[in-house]
Amino acid sequence: MARRKAATAIQEFPLIRQLQRRFERNSPSVIQGIGDDAAVVSILPGDWTVLTTDLLAEGVHFDLRTAALASVGYRAAMANLSDVAAMGATPRFLLVSIAIPPTLRTADVTQLYRGLMQACDRYDVLLIGGDTSASRQGLFLSITLLGTVKRGQALFRHGATVGDSLYVTGTIGDSLAGLQLLTKRRRTARSPRLRPADRRFLINRHLHPTARVQEGLWLNQARLATSAIDLSDGLSGDLRHICEQSRVGAAVDVAQLPLSPACQAYAETQGIDPATLALAGGEDYELLFTVAPRHERSLERQARARGFQITKVGVIRPRTFGIQTTSIDGPARPLPVTSYQHFR
Amino acid sequence: MARRKAATAIQEFPLIRQLQRRFERNSPSVIQGIGDDAAVVSILPGDWTVLTTDLLAEGVHFDLRTAALASVGYRAAMANLSDVAAMGATPRFLLVSIAIPPTLRTADVTQLYRGLMQACDRYDVLLIGGDTSASRQGLFLSITLLGTVKRGQALFRHGATVGDSLYVTGTIGDSLAGLQLLTKRRRTARSPRLRPADRRFLINRHLHPTARVQEGLWLNQARLATSAIDLSDGLSGDLRHICEQSRVGAAVDVAQLPLSPACQAYAETQGIDPATLALAGGEDYELLFTVAPRHERSLERQARARGFQITKVGVIRPRTFGIQTTSIDGPARPLPVTSYQHFR
Repeated sequence: MARRKAATAIQEFPLIRQLQRRFERNSPSVIQGIGDDAAVVSILPGDWTVLTTDLLAEGVHFDLRTAALASVGYRAAMANLSDVAAMGATPRFLLVSIAIPPTLRTADVTQLYRGLMQACDRYDVLLIGGDTSASRQGLFLSITLLGTVKRGQALFRHGATVGDSLYVTGTIGDSLAGLQLLTKRRRTARSPRLRPADRRFLINRHLHPTARVQEGLWLNQARLATSAIDLSDGLSGDLRHICEQSRVGAAVDVAQLPLSPACQAYAETQGIDPATLALAGGEDYELLFTVAPRHERSLERQARARGFQITKVGVIRPRTFGIQTTSIDGPARPLPVTSYQHFR
Repeated sequence: MARRKAATAIQEFPLIRQLQRRFERNSPSVIQGIGDDAAVVSILPGDWTVLTTDLLAEGVHFDLRTAALASVGYRAAMANLSDVAAMGATPRFLLVSIAIPPTLRTADVTQLYRGLMQACDRYDVLLIGGDTSASRQGLFLSITLLGTVKRGQALFRHGATVGDSLYVTGTIGDSLAGLQLLTKRRRTARSPRLRPADRRFLINRHLHPTARVQEGLWLNQARLATSAIDLSDGLSGDLRHICEQSRVGAAVDVAQLPLSPACQAYAETQGIDPATLALAGGEDYELLFTVAPRHERSLERQARARGFQITKVGVIRPRTFGIQTTSIDGPARPLPVTSYQHFR
């Protein structure tokens, strides 16, 4: 663990030792974990190395007035796990850096790590290093996740071709609904009431999302997907990345978007179309991917056998088509460019 | 490049594309650089992967009132390059994340990257990804560097044994002297004047340090060092890490500490012992390493042949000895625990 600066109110070395004792796991693949100039890991000779990193800022990506530190840590890890999942890779090793403001105490930092490790332990990801430092104002959290994938075999954004079907895992829009429930003013007196179970479901989808690691591995290993991305910015924003990098267009069938009953109920209480939540809502961490038509039946059969929920939501069109939404009861329309803006 | 948030005053995607165009280099080892959910790199089958990360905060690690953004970027990269050098590894791939405050403009961010890449280009390190985000207040910079080392062969902190000689590369104390010249009040009227060339040398050693990558590779490949660390916190702090992790003590001969003429001249202007700068001064990024006595002659011969400056500064003693400084004209004394505190 390369580290240099003592946190303002916290002794750095005792903190690192405490975190190491509590959260470092042994593994033959970790040659050197926390405690040297750098971590050293051993990766299988036939593998490619996959790397993703995120820097999260208090007041921009999370609000400690509404979010618990354990949840901030959990969601930060999950966002990176989701990126690795979207490459069809196995997440393996995590580096975590934090810049700690004077307002936080050691117990707070431990809570943050507890959340991080809760996410990592779900996927056997090992904490191998990081950095702790002081921040004059605001908590900053930087995560780097290393994954591995069989050499020559990864899911990129750039493989979609015209005629491919567009699929999404799970249900979408839930996380945005959950965020709105956490942060918005009360519903108006006349709107229908949301059941507590639906409310809990949506808030949990926001605070404790699930990276689709197993689904990504399956799509990659079975060579079923031609491209993939994770839904962090929302379908309308992330589909654009696939289209730009694959140099194609897409038609999204709004009527087919997979919506949870809770999300539909929430949309009703707000008097809005749940499809707008599904199109614009980010941080669902579902996978959006494309599949050649000849593999569709095999894909759907395998998904059922594995218990994975997948839904066909559109089709890849030529680049000149652009990106449009279609539905039975309305005309085709260009998909709005606006993608989800996270908390700020 | 996993990224999620637009910077407050800067358009995120155009910024990323501009940085990518300008600073991304092609290499057969980079399967996927900036622009997907994660970067994908190919590492030689016989190699271990070495990982280090740093998170730097404005007002804690650097001060934009005195340091140019290019220098902040350069030094941040160099600190990580130095960590990889201290493992005896070859630095390969860099991930950079920045949280950008509303006060910075695109041109400022480009300057930061220019400095980063100046450091990386010296060692053929490739920028493969990162994250850009907004910060409400203060610039934050997170760097992750991936290096490679031959499987089974890395320089750790834990290999020193009693009787080993303690060596350091280059000269030490220069960076702290340079920092003091940049930030301190003027010298008193009576003290001798520092020559402009000495002043420039010391300030340059602070603003443009050099990671000892070639020296680290040599020490590792020739199997000459039993342990190594880079001097980021200062000799008194970093020697402690070698001693703790190797479960040994050490005697440092203060009279042998390698001091530059400029550092000696600066100490004279301040009326201080230059050894205090050399012991406490951080961010020199020289290597501190231990060598078995039977390899000393070979080490010194090879260093001369390669043009590497190395100096024997002490010897490893039993743990019970502790860490002491010795000199010809004075008694042995415990080395003070205080290590260098960076700007805050």
